Amino acid sequence: MAIGVALCACASRPLPSWNDTPARAAIINFVEDAAAPSGSSAIPREQRIAVFDNDGTLWSEQPLYFQLLFAIDRVHALAPQRPEWKSEEPFRSILAGDTPGALAQGKPAIEKILAATHAGMTTDEFDALVRAWARTARHPSTGRLYTEMVYQPMLELLDYLESRGFNTYIVSGGGVGFMRAWASEAYGVPPERIIGSSGRTAFEVRGGRPVLVKQPEIWSIDDGPGKPANIDLHIGRRPVIAVGNSDGDFEMLEWTTSAPGPRLGVLIHHTDAQREWAYDRDSHIGALKRGLDEADARGWIIIDMSADWATVHPPR
Amino acid sequence: MAIGVALCACASRPLPSWNDTPARAAIINFVEDAAAPSGSSAIPREQRIAVFDNDGTLWSEQPLYFQLLFAIDRVHALAPQRPEWKSEEPFRSILAGDTPGALAQGKPAIEKILAATHAGMTTDEFDALVRAWARTARHPSTGRLYTEMVYQPMLELLDYLESRGFNTYIVSGGGVGFMRAWASEAYGVPPERIIGSSGRTAFEVRGGRPVLVKQPEIWSIDDGPGKPANIDLHIGRRPVIAVGNSDGDFEMLEWTTSAPGPRLGVLIHHTDAQREWAYDRDSHIGALKRGLDEADARGWIIIDMSADWATVHPPR
Repeated sequence: MAIGVALCACASRPLPSWNDTPARAAIINFVEDAAAPSGSSAIPREQRIAVFDNDGTLWSEQPLYFQLLFAIDRVHALAPQRPEWKSEEPFRSILAGDTPGALAQGKPAIEKILAATHAGMTTDEFDALVRAWARTARHPSTGRLYTEMVYQPMLELLDYLESRGFNTYIVSGGGVGFMRAWASEAYGVPPERIIGSSGRTAFEVRGGRPVLVKQPEIWSIDDGPGKPANIDLHIGRRPVIAVGNSDGDFEMLEWTTSAPGPRLGVLIHHTDAQREWAYDRDSHIGALKRGLDEADARGWIIIDMSADWATVHPPR
Repeated sequence: MAIGVALCACASRPLPSWNDTPARAAIINFVEDAAAPSGSSAIPREQRIAVFDNDGTLWSEQPLYFQLLFAIDRVHALAPQRPEWKSEEPFRSILAGDTPGALAQGKPAIEKILAATHAGMTTDEFDALVRAWARTARHPSTGRLYTEMVYQPMLELLDYLESRGFNTYIVSGGGVGFMRAWASEAYGVPPERIIGSSGRTAFEVRGGRPVLVKQPEIWSIDDGPGKPANIDLHIGRRPVIAVGNSDGDFEMLEWTTSAPGPRLGVLIHHTDAQREWAYDRDSHIGALKRGLDEADARGWIIIDMSADWATVHPPR
C-alpha cells in the first residue's frame, strides 16, 4: 500500500524529464495558478491557449530545418524525371552532393527548391509523400527518424498543458501541410490546431472528384511578424502562453505577453552541444539575439537546455 | 410524475422549430447514426466536423449582405472626416441616399467602400466598431437588430450537432473579423471555429503595445472554390456535413460530400416571401441555380424554408 502511494505520487509529478530548476517551477506555478478554480491568476478555460513554435522548440533544427532536408530528398527522388536539373542550379549542386553550395545561392534558390518539391500535386498526394518520408528518412548525424528528434520535455509540457485545460497550438514557420502529415501523431495536437506557412491551393475536379492542387504562390509566411497575424486569423483570440526558441518567435511572444492578465513567454536556449546542439546569436538557423537581450526585461523564461532538461530526445 | 416525463420528452425532441418533414427526419437520422457508438454510418468523434455558410444560411441576407449595410453605415459615420467624399464616387451616391446607384458601379466601387471602412485601423478597433453596430443598428425593413435575424431552426441545428459530438464551424464569405465580433455570441461557435474572407494585417508596435493593423490588401476570398481551400488551411481535414444556401457554397458541399463514408450536404432554399424572402436562380444576392439543378443527383437535402421551418427568426 505504501509502495502504491509512492508510485502514484511519482507518476503524477508533472514534467518528469525536466530537472528540478527554477524554470520548471515557474512554468508549473503559472499553469497551476491558471487552472485553479479561483484566484487572481486563474484563467477561464476558453482563454487557456498556448502556442508553440516547432523547429528548435518542439524538435531539432540542425544542421538544417528538417523540411528543407525533406525537400532535398525529394529533389533526389524526382531527378530521374527531370534530366534538365543536371545543368540547372540549384538542383545541379544538390544532385552533385553539394547541398551547402546550393543553399549558399540564397533565397531565390531555396524558393526554387520548395516550388519544385511542394507544388504541382494535390494536398492528398503531398500528405502521402511526407508521411512516407517521416516513416523512413533518417537524420544525417544521429541516424534517427526525424520524428524521434522531438524533445521529450516538450512532449511532456504539451500533455501537461492539455491536462490542465489548455488548448495547445503549433505555430510553425514550416509548411502547414508538411507539419500536419506527422505532427498530429508526434505531438498529439489535432490538425485544426496546427498553423504554418502556406502556399495557395487551387480547387479542381479531376475524374469527378474534387481536389486541392498545391500552387507555387506563397499565401502566408508564418515567421516573425507573420506569427501574430496568423494567430489572429486562425484562433481569433490572444494566447496566454507562447513558447519559441529564435528571434523568428519574438513577435509571437511579444503579442502573447503584452496584454493584461497572466501571461507566460518561454524561450528554449540551445546550450547543449553534447546531447543536441549549442547555438544562439550567430547561428545560420534559429538565431536568438534579441530574445536573449530582452527576455529579462519582458519577464520571459529562458530554458537552458543543458541545465533544465534531464532528457533531450526520447530514449532510443 | 407523468407530467414530468411528458415535459422531459417534449424538451428533448431535437429541432423543435422544424416541421415534421422528410428533410428534418433525414438530418436527424444522419446525425443519430453518426453519433452512434457503432454501425456502418457511425463517425469517430474527431471526424464529426460540420461547416456552415453564414449569409442566407444562418441569418438573412436581403436586401443586401448585412456586412455591406454595416459598411454603408460606416461611410455615413466617417463622412464628416472625409469632405472629399461629397464629390467622389461611390461615396457621393451613398451619402446622397442612393445606395443602389453606388453598388451599381460594380466590384471596384464595392472594393473602395470596403477598403475605406474595413482597413486602416487595428483589429481591436474594428472589433469594437462592429460590436457597437451589432448592438444598435437595425434592419431596414424589419426594424430588428441584425443579430435577431438569425434563423431559429439553424440555432437549434448547431446546438443539436454539438450535443452529438460534432464540432461546428462557420465558413463565411463575410470577413472573419466582422463575423467574430458578433457570431460567437449569436451562434455559440467560438472564434477559432469561425473562418471567413480576410485582409492582410500588419504587425506594429504602438506606444510599446503590439497591434495588428488591417490593410486594404485582400488575403483570402472565402467564397466558391475559396471555401474548400480555406477549410483545408484552417481545419486540415474534410468535414462530413456542409450546409449552405447559394452557388457560392457549391464547392464546399462538393468537397464535403465527394469523399468515402457517410456525408451530408444541405442547401437552404429561400421559399418564404411571407416570413423571410423568396429567391433563387436569378437573385442578385445568394443566387442558387447549379445547386438546385444538381442536388438530387448528388444526394443533397434541400430545405424548403416555407414547408420545413415552423419558425424562421426567433420570436420577438
